[in-house]
Amino acid sequence: MPIEKISSLQNPRVKQLVKLRDRRPRDEAGVFLVEGYREIRRALEKNVLLTELYFSPEWFLGENEPALIEQARTAGAQVCELAKETFAKVAYRERPDGLLAVAPQWKRALADLALPAVPFVLVVEAIEKPGNLGTILRSADAAGCDAVIVCDPVTDIFNPNVVRASTGVLFSVPLVVEESARVLAWLREKKIRTVATTPAAEQVYSEVDLRGALAVVMGSEQYGLSEFWLKNADLPVRIPMAGQADSLNVAMATIITLFEAVRQRGPNGTRSGT
Amino acid sequence: MPIEKISSLQNPRVKQLVKLRDRRPRDEAGVFLVEGYREIRRALEKNVLLTELYFSPEWFLGENEPALIEQARTAGAQVCELAKETFAKVAYRERPDGLLAVAPQWKRALADLALPAVPFVLVVEAIEKPGNLGTILRSADAAGCDAVIVCDPVTDIFNPNVVRASTGVLFSVPLVVEESARVLAWLREKKIRTVATTPAAEQVYSEVDLRGALAVVMGSEQYGLSEFWLKNADLPVRIPMAGQADSLNVAMATIITLFEAVRQRGPNGTRSGT
Repeated sequence: MPIEKISSLQNPRVKQLVKLRDRRPRDEAGVFLVEGYREIRRALEKNVLLTELYFSPEWFLGENEPALIEQARTAGAQVCELAKETFAKVAYRERPDGLLAVAPQWKRALADLALPAVPFVLVVEAIEKPGNLGTILRSADAAGCDAVIVCDPVTDIFNPNVVRASTGVLFSVPLVVEESARVLAWLREKKIRTVATTPAAEQVYSEVDLRGALAVVMGSEQYGLSEFWLKNADLPVRIPMAGQADSLNVAMATIITLFEAVRQRGPNGTRSGT
Repeated sequence: MPIEKISSLQNPRVKQLVKLRDRRPRDEAGVFLVEGYREIRRALEKNVLLTELYFSPEWFLGENEPALIEQARTAGAQVCELAKETFAKVAYRERPDGLLAVAPQWKRALADLALPAVPFVLVVEAIEKPGNLGTILRSADAAGCDAVIVCDPVTDIFNPNVVRASTGVLFSVPLVVEESARVLAWLREKKIRTVATTPAAEQVYSEVDLRGALAVVMGSEQYGLSEFWLKNADLPVRIPMAGQADSLNVAMATIITLFEAVRQRGPNGTRSGT
């Protein structure tokens, strides 16, 4: 089957791809953009159905792109070539690599999460910057979190900058968006202890027991933890800082706390608390 | 003294400010750009001499800008107002806050570093992305590192994105740029043990002793540690990862390692190794 080639900037599909950078058209179409070799590869590895794949060979950076395109096509993606300038228009990145896909959005509920006997969960509240959310997803993946729960989101998890900053980890970490009150009720029902990081806490994060069923709760960039979580978290902890008061942003505080939990929980990640 | 106001985009000072985004003109003039309220405030806190300060009230985000401008003027900065569109041209950021300063570059040598009895140093090799270098500086500040040594730099430490990503911490962390061989010789002379993070190591970073005189050595984004440091570091360590092989970037690996050292070294940061 010959592959369609689009060069007109006025083509309706080109216009639609540009629109998908914004949330409303994304939600209306129920899809989102996945740009870049690494991100698309990870989507395919996780059997995410890519409905459309656009490519433009003049932008390719390596030699593996044709194989990836073929893999996506075999998996059911509608494949379409774009002229160089046309691709530049639909690309979200400053330095595109000639690959852009469209994937369906999904909605996962708390009840859908398959947790192990001793769960290790990250809860983030109202994160504002897509780049921070993406970085936090990478951290959770590296730390082996069983799920990431985004409460009362300000940032759309399908924002192209989340996909990019997560380097495609968005496809591998189980991710749920839910209201804080429901998340708390669910955590209590599951008997998962909540540890919340806040500068106002007395105890230092590395001096408390982070083993057992655990949820690390992190606040937003600008406001930190909400009253709700400050009041309801089982254990408030702080990260001692030597320098400027705001040296650590939320993504940095998250990775420090997660990896201290990993250290305490040991190699198999499920060592039970005492 | 009335404050000069520039509105012409053709004004030579406006053109020079735009040029200072690039390294060569920066090095020729021996200065660099400091944009933003927080960054300028930190420079003033550290008694950095700002030679020029440009402001444009229509971009201000808060109410403290006039006081900051007055503080800079009193400290010797030549203050100049820019018309709104003129400021937009010289601003480096997408969302400028109406404040842009010029500061002289400095050059600090290893011999200039005033180290405590039990030093805690970060060595980074050939970091490529200014944003990563800035984030690493923030981490080193938060962890209380006594110095950051940048070996064989690819990124200019005076790149505007380093200043921005460091949120001005560039002014508070003692920073030295030097060749790797000289850094190693200096560390050995000072009897500072080197711990180098590499995926190839057998020992896990949190299971080795990170107390005592310590230098944490981190490689570049793309290539990791060079042969030189892999061969010469006292102790190679790795960070265990649960997820994708490349989940952690160099800035994330740095903060994990630094904060494990902080944890082991204890509250006053100088507890001696055993």
